Amino acid sequence: MNFTSDNEAPAHPDIMNAVVAANEGYATAYASDGFSQALKERFSELFETECHVLPLATGTAANCVALAELSPPWGAIMCHERAHIHNDENGAPEFYSAGAKLMPLPGENGRLEPQSLARAIDGAGVHGVHNVKPSVVSITQETECGTSYTPDAIRALAEVSHERGLPLHMDGARFANAVDFLSCSPAETTWKAGVDVLSFGATKNGALTAEAIVVFGHPEWLEGMERRRKRSGHLLSKMRYVSAQLLAMLDDDLWLRLAGDANARAAQLAAGIGRHPSASLHWPVEANEVFMKTEPSRLAALKEAGFQFHRWPGHDDLARLVCSWATSEADVERFLQALD
Amino acid sequence: MNFTSDNEAPAHPDIMNAVVAANEGYATAYASDGFSQALKERFSELFETECHVLPLATGTAANCVALAELSPPWGAIMCHERAHIHNDENGAPEFYSAGAKLMPLPGENGRLEPQSLARAIDGAGVHGVHNVKPSVVSITQETECGTSYTPDAIRALAEVSHERGLPLHMDGARFANAVDFLSCSPAETTWKAGVDVLSFGATKNGALTAEAIVVFGHPEWLEGMERRRKRSGHLLSKMRYVSAQLLAMLDDDLWLRLAGDANARAAQLAAGIGRHPSASLHWPVEANEVFMKTEPSRLAALKEAGFQFHRWPGHDDLARLVCSWATSEADVERFLQALD
Amino acid sequence: MNFTSDNEAPAHPDIMNAVVAANEGYATAYASDGFSQALKERFSELFETECHVLPLATGTAANCVALAELSPPWGAIMCHERAHIHNDENGAPEFYSAGAKLMPLPGENGRLEPQSLARAIDGAGVHGVHNVKPSVVSITQETECGTSYTPDAIRALAEVSHERGLPLHMDGARFANAVDFLSCSPAETTWKAGVDVLSFGATKNGALTAEAIVVFGHPEWLEGMERRRKRSGHLLSKMRYVSAQLLAMLDDDLWLRLAGDANARAAQLAAGIGRHPSASLHWPVEANEVFMKTEPSRLAALKEAGFQFHRWPGHDDLARLVCSWATSEADVERFLQALD
Amino acid sequence: MNFTSDNEAPAHPDIMNAVVAANEGYATAYASDGFSQALKERFSELFETECHVLPLATGTAANCVALAELSPPWGAIMCHERAHIHNDENGAPEFYSAGAKLMPLPGENGRLEPQSLARAIDGAGVHGVHNVKPSVVSITQETECGTSYTPDAIRALAEVSHERGLPLHMDGARFANAVDFLSCSPAETTWKAGVDVLSFGATKNGALTAEAIVVFGHPEWLEGMERRRKRSGHLLSKMRYVSAQLLAMLDDDLWLRLAGDANARAAQLAAGIGRHPSASLHWPVEANEVFMKTEPSRLAALKEAGFQFHRWPGHDDLARLVCSWATSEADVERFLQALD
Repeated sequence: MNFTSDNEAPAHPDIMNAVVAANEGYATAYASDGFSQALKERFSELFETECHVLPLATGTAANCVALAELSPPWGAIMCHERAHIHNDENGAPEFYSAGAKLMPLPGENGRLEPQSLARAIDGAGVHGVHNVKPSVVSITQETECGTSYTPDAIRALAEVSHERGLPLHMDGARFANAVDFLSCSPAETTWKAGVDVLSFGATKNGALTAEAIVVFGHPEWLEGMERRRKRSGHLLSKMRYVSAQLLAMLDDDLWLRLAGDANARAAQLAAGIGRHPSASLHWPVEANEVFMKTEPSRLAALKEAGFQFHRWPGHDDLARLVCSWATSEADVERFLQALD
Repeated sequence: MNFTSDNEAPAHPDIMNAVVAANEGYATAYASDGFSQALKERFSELFETECHVLPLATGTAANCVALAELSPPWGAIMCHERAHIHNDENGAPEFYSAGAKLMPLPGENGRLEPQSLARAIDGAGVHGVHNVKPSVVSITQETECGTSYTPDAIRALAEVSHERGLPLHMDGARFANAVDFLSCSPAETTWKAGVDVLSFGATKNGALTAEAIVVFGHPEWLEGMERRRKRSGHLLSKMRYVSAQLLAMLDDDLWLRLAGDANARAAQLAAGIGRHPSASLHWPVEANEVFMKTEPSRLAALKEAGFQFHRWPGHDDLARLVCSWATSEADVERFLQALD
Repeated sequence: MNFTSDNEAPAHPDIMNAVVAANEGYATAYASDGFSQALKERFSELFETECHVLPLATGTAANCVALAELSPPWGAIMCHERAHIHNDENGAPEFYSAGAKLMPLPGENGRLEPQSLARAIDGAGVHGVHNVKPSVVSITQETECGTSYTPDAIRALAEVSHERGLPLHMDGARFANAVDFLSCSPAETTWKAGVDVLSFGATKNGALTAEAIVVFGHPEWLEGMERRRKRSGHLLSKMRYVSAQLLAMLDDDLWLRLAGDANARAAQLAAGIGRHPSASLHWPVEANEVFMKTEPSRLAALKEAGFQFHRWPGHDDLARLVCSWATSEADVERFLQALD
Repeated sequence: MNFTSDNEAPAHPDIMNAVVAANEGYATAYASDGFSQALKERFSELFETECHVLPLATGTAANCVALAELSPPWGAIMCHERAHIHNDENGAPEFYSAGAKLMPLPGENGRLEPQSLARAIDGAGVHGVHNVKPSVVSITQETECGTSYTPDAIRALAEVSHERGLPLHMDGARFANAVDFLSCSPAETTWKAGVDVLSFGATKNGALTAEAIVVFGHPEWLEGMERRRKRSGHLLSKMRYVSAQLLAMLDDDLWLRLAGDANARAAQLAAGIGRHPSASLHWPVEANEVFMKTEPSRLAALKEAGFQFHRWPGHDDLARLVCSWATSEADVERFLQALD
């Protein structure tokens, strides 16, 4: 039973079918094919506004191509101290930006907070050219703690950012899960709340490998992003296979249905843990990730029983359990029984 | 009729089937899955020596992750003046290497030549720290002119390189086509001839998107290459879908059969052009690319008749015609008839 | 009365005279002149061991040329959260290293502590290629809080570092002040305690502009450092004027006499503040910097009375007072009287 | 007798005196001192237009801070194939620009030519994001061949550049020598002819170490240049000593008098060589550098007789002789006698 990560699950059959279907005849290379060209219109519909879309293969690439465009080399990228871009990308944002600095900030339940963000931005540059210059704010939706930002929470951060001239980037590796949890429209949790660029994730949500940078407004950023995508080797020659996955995700709201299933399993898991006498939830469950606290020996026993999950580094008693579209109710049930 | 590029052709059904078959159950992420783990053994068999294999999604990434490991930022990467890494990757090698310089050299039919290579290396660093330092030699097999290096030609370049302490990299985006043309073993045209690192291309040869860095000897390079792959966003979480393509390529020599078909079509094309009164071959046809010279008006007419190909920049009378596994004898026949 | 920084003081006349004296006839360019060539022997004498010396013009360059050699782009540079390299160089280490990450650590009185350093190194890389890799430890001597590391304190950090394969760098912008305060030999507080590379500062100690990278052992680092110095524009063509300053500093221990004078003034200042009913020392005074806490109104009054100093950002009641060779006893006396 | 380079000559006494005079009392650090603050007005007078001035210590830094601001990482810096930035800075422009590509162009006597420049720019970007993008043109005044561009020649290049949206940078390491040779005003050979940024060199012209970036118009470039200067370690804390040199250079046209002396010696040398039966001038002498062709044995004999100069790499029969302010008529006379 695999709760290690949603990126260990297989791709959803509908996505796979779309890839197979895309394998028909010749297609112009380097994202000039029909699938890739259709993305702009389809995402603009989804987000209820004209947006620009750059498909690519990984979330790290999506985040870093975007952030490097938004931050000069002497910039500071403001993010939560648990952010994936800060901890899990081996310095990729620093690489892409030619040496910008990530400025990690605390915040409850994995969420940046407007006041501490404002203080951090205002305090960061007091010595002028001697300091790096806050240049962009990046938040993660769903966060690394399995929580989600409400549109209002995003709006408050966007206001702090925009008042200071900083754009707002959203790392949406699990964007679908947050949107499903919030029961809001994609627009409400992005540009309507002040998000300027979104890394739209599909891989963790049941694609093979498909992500997209979605830019709201700001056509002046496109050339740099396209150049950076090419120059980092992320302009796939046969992009049709990536774009076909993204299009299939949008068909009949497949992306939300898959995320909804994963979220439902996480909720089921959370409910079971909540009822357990010696296990508890470390952070609120607001999407598809569950952080469970329990005795180390119990965690070891679960591992031995064949359940797979991450034991949190530095915390003997903390496990991360991730649900995906492929997690079944029975899977969760078995886990909860084993927990007892 | 599409002769624009082998990367506009669809993926071969056997490759697609392998991707579909790989979509079974959970798999450890980030190239720790069974498919990815099998690559080392399979490539070691193919190359008749132990080698290390890093799968990734694009040729630019394969070239640049490898070259950045082999060249310090103050290095010079010696290559042919027509090399893809010099002309077609938007400065990707410079990006990955933190500013190394590409030193483009002339050479007939797209091939580097030992004497001019030796002269260039020897002359490049005479002013010590004031000059960049030649650090690696990169050749393309099949070359950008559609020619192939014989094992002896490679050996001569390797000797020049190794005597001067420089490793030899091979950009093998169309490696299969060269191996088929040369009727030699993969080993003979790589490590046995002195190649230290190969960018093994599968995408142009009928994969969806699959390339691999193959390292012969030199385990000391692996950590840096793995770090650079991760840091550039090329360590795909669901790498199984890439690795499955590579494995399928090796099954029953599919990679050579596909390249052989493409090469046969190019030979058929070349024969027809050779017989034509007012068309000629610009470079020898030694793999799957044909460079045809003819009157600009004739090229325009072919385009109008629906044939797709690149007109060579700066040369009104030059067309590049690329064959792939998907090119049929009838396709070529139709083109030759239209040419008349 | 200027207590703003020791880099606002003029150069000492002996240093200036040395520069004037160096202006005699022709000298080979780019650090091949006699002055620059003499540095190795003179510093080797001073440090009682063979060392290598690269003169250059600024402390930022000294730190970053050294650190970039010691950290790969995916490395983590472990340092105190108040370190100059982290806060005051506008991301220069990130620039020079092509995107390494600085990992700031807490520590009382501006000093790194062995246990938290060990924990930080051990915890940083648990996810392998997903994390940056701790690559070098950098400490500041005298620290940004005006304190000094004893040889034993350095040795403890060096042991933690070396056991984990990390070299130890010392930012010695105010190295002379620490050595004078500690009454130890330069050797004892550097290589004998485990320091591998020292940024030896002279500018703040009475030079016009002169710093040096001093490498203990490790000749394998020299090529990269020399290349990086050149490539960053820090290999001055007329290096003799820099090297002459460094040589003059070593003559008759001028460097220690100047630092000793500055330290004595700081001690005088500290004593006066210690006696004051409503002022106090924020950190121990162990070199030439004094951090004084007192009412904001008192600080404002001192400013108005013409005394110049930094009010610490984010701390209304904290002033930094820096003494230099040029600070006189009378200057300090006047300040203390004004404080009353 | 030293004809190796003007950077092996001592500093002129007037410059040294200015440095000594600047060593008076305290001065605000990091280019906020009175000397540095005076540069804008003094250079604006000299150039008869408002310009911005960033002092720094080396020509490589001046060139690269400027070029990195003018070229994105995916840019191409168009320059002559003999340019110092291409051949003699160890890849510094690539380092500063995070990997831009230098595009070396031929041109008689070391000068770029409008038609080939136009062709190169127009041809460079035909494949869009696959190619680097021409972003800035850089010329050297006086050139690496000892020739100078007339204002008309510059204007023609500026037109080609500006029509294509590229700014024009001038590497003026020996700007003074060109201005003296051309008998034109500094304005005529810079902004009036279309130059947007000048690296104004003083070091080779008799300073200790002093250069300046002079920006004509384009205040939008200043922040980036200031950030890059700091971040590369070129914002000297005691900048007053650099700025004082620059100011002294402008006093009573010292810079032109020194360059005029050097040029006169070069002309004297050229005249003598021109009269010699078996020596000749390789390039026209239009400033302070003389390229002499003669038998290798004669060059060897001159070396043996104690004359110092560069023998041109790859050319046995070619010597570069550089005159400086410190070269005397008698020096030249002795050389010419020895040549006989």
